[in-house]
Amino acid sequence: MQSFNPPVRTLMGPGPSDVHPRVLQAMARPTIGHLDPAFIGMMDETKEALKYAYQTENELTMPVSAPGSAGMETCFANLVEPGDKVIVCINGVFGNRMKENVTRLGGEAVIVEDKWGEAVSFDKVEQALKENPDAKIVAFVHAETSTGVASDAKALCALAQQHDCLTIVDAVTSLAGSELRVDDWGIDAIYSGTQKCLSAPPGISPISFNERAIHKLTNRKTPVTSWFLDLNLVMGYWGKGAKRAYHHTAPVNTLYGLHESLVMLMEEGLENSWARHQANHQLLKAGLESMGIGFLVNEADRLPQLNTVFIPDGIDEAAVRSSLLNDYNLEIGAGLGDLAGKVWRIGLMGYSARRENVLLCVSALKEILAIK
Amino acid sequence: MQSFNPPVRTLMGPGPSDVHPRVLQAMARPTIGHLDPAFIGMMDETKEALKYAYQTENELTMPVSAPGSAGMETCFANLVEPGDKVIVCINGVFGNRMKENVTRLGGEAVIVEDKWGEAVSFDKVEQALKENPDAKIVAFVHAETSTGVASDAKALCALAQQHDCLTIVDAVTSLAGSELRVDDWGIDAIYSGTQKCLSAPPGISPISFNERAIHKLTNRKTPVTSWFLDLNLVMGYWGKGAKRAYHHTAPVNTLYGLHESLVMLMEEGLENSWARHQANHQLLKAGLESMGIGFLVNEADRLPQLNTVFIPDGIDEAAVRSSLLNDYNLEIGAGLGDLAGKVWRIGLMGYSARRENVLLCVSALKEILAIK
Repeated sequence: MQSFNPPVRTLMGPGPSDVHPRVLQAMARPTIGHLDPAFIGMMDETKEALKYAYQTENELTMPVSAPGSAGMETCFANLVEPGDKVIVCINGVFGNRMKENVTRLGGEAVIVEDKWGEAVSFDKVEQALKENPDAKIVAFVHAETSTGVASDAKALCALAQQHDCLTIVDAVTSLAGSELRVDDWGIDAIYSGTQKCLSAPPGISPISFNERAIHKLTNRKTPVTSWFLDLNLVMGYWGKGAKRAYHHTAPVNTLYGLHESLVMLMEEGLENSWARHQANHQLLKAGLESMGIGFLVNEADRLPQLNTVFIPDGIDEAAVRSSLLNDYNLEIGAGLGDLAGKVWRIGLMGYSARRENVLLCVSALKEILAIK
Repeated sequence: MQSFNPPVRTLMGPGPSDVHPRVLQAMARPTIGHLDPAFIGMMDETKEALKYAYQTENELTMPVSAPGSAGMETCFANLVEPGDKVIVCINGVFGNRMKENVTRLGGEAVIVEDKWGEAVSFDKVEQALKENPDAKIVAFVHAETSTGVASDAKALCALAQQHDCLTIVDAVTSLAGSELRVDDWGIDAIYSGTQKCLSAPPGISPISFNERAIHKLTNRKTPVTSWFLDLNLVMGYWGKGAKRAYHHTAPVNTLYGLHESLVMLMEEGLENSWARHQANHQLLKAGLESMGIGFLVNEADRLPQLNTVFIPDGIDEAAVRSSLLNDYNLEIGAGLGDLAGKVWRIGLMGYSARRENVLLCVSALKEILAIK
């Protein structure tokens, strides 16, 4: 067995995205102890920077030591108790995963379904809330990575609050890529990943809980089933002050990477980052439309960072993706579920949202599809 | 907020251990997609190398995408169903954590307790098995990181098998540091961490399940509560063949690090690695004993990789650790629980198990304690 030297790819799939050399270098810095005072200082900075990225003052804002799926599970495992009724909005893969979380935890999932590629319907959620006055939580995906659709998190959270429900919001693909304001929008619990628009390596899931969510968490009648994800315990390590209680060993070097990516986000400015994603999306859109390639999602609900486009008729889509990967070192994503074989998913996330990536992608597709 | 440049430490605590520059460099290699064919080739190599490290032919041998605590939870969440009786051996912090896992999952924990610093008692476990013929699992810690004691995993597993029980074994600190033979000893389910004797950065937990454990897993009457840790799903991604189903985004760069550390383990040879840990332990022991510092654990049950030693009388132990850290950039560990303030834990794990580290540690302690 030899050392592994990965090929150098351009990552324009649904994540992971290209990781900036500064972030890669940070990953290689010397490992130190997870209770080292120097490390605890870095943890505090990371929390502050995540508050900025999420636009929140929530004290409980921190990175979970595992991928986005574990961040999702952290929200559900801490906030859903057996018997709790949860309104789960499904308009793609990740809404389905939310439902799985609810039912495995013994909760009752009330499903609000929308077509893949469409935003979560405000009216349907309102109807479900009226029909289920005992619902305790509304859960939905802000940016559906499987379809590229954005839902109106602000309106949905206001609606949930009117009906005295907490909200759990999936922001895996939205954080740092398009507008997201946790406090202004009244989001109660939210999770994301590092490998999308933050462009840090995968393996960490930033979460944030407000006071309403913490109230629910600290007033549970049953213990959290997961010891690893129990925020009552995790906060002993990620909480305030110099004294931290050992809970688990933090992924030290991956946190170096996240920290560096957050330094870069602060250097650029959050709104500038949102604008850059939008500008590159417009560039990609123009290029693809010039080739007759259209979008799954209507323009108003489209995510700039995840472009789901129809595959031209008569094309062997897997062969195109193979050619992009093998001949151009360029990764784009396949469709999931019912969309498999019908769409490609082209990511413009974080450091991947660059003019040079857009030009490469459009030019390579033109060559392969032999469009002059 | 500035880039974080950690101090360069020598890590001789209970983990993380020193990470070799080759492994750190591997962490900084370009991120590629978690479904990239090149990445899947690396996954297969990693699984094979873990089988070597564990001395097993178990097909289900793979790294969980989260720290050792999540590896523990993977074993319990997949193998314990509500109502299952589990014999949990407690002789330190991590046995207690096992009990937490069992009870949160709705299992019934039968506790076999031994003094901290002593090995798990074969006789007590036998007694518990006789008194609980309906017990389904015996769980114990092979190498207790909180005390530095080794328990006789071979004898305990044989005993459990006689009573038709599965075993769950914590090998977080033993893997690659001292003798461990999963197949020969009949261990059914085992978990470890990367940041101890493998000397890769923290954040990953290698596990292995044999056919008996898989039989229990696939014949559950209830779904696994955790979606993220459900091995029925995870195996769709880490399983055989070129086609892998997306489950979660793997921690790509941390896996590069683990892969490189496994390449280095294979270069050295597993038994040579065990012998190196033992040789450096002997060196440390001689140095400490020359200063009148003695061990908590009796010689026969002592782990070479985790040396728990009594703090000399009249010493401000926290001040000594601070001086080691601030004046020598050397980290050693404090005592946990009842041992806090009474012992230090000096790790000789993986790349930390080197003659130069031992000499530094002994010399620095001599200077601080002013022993001539």
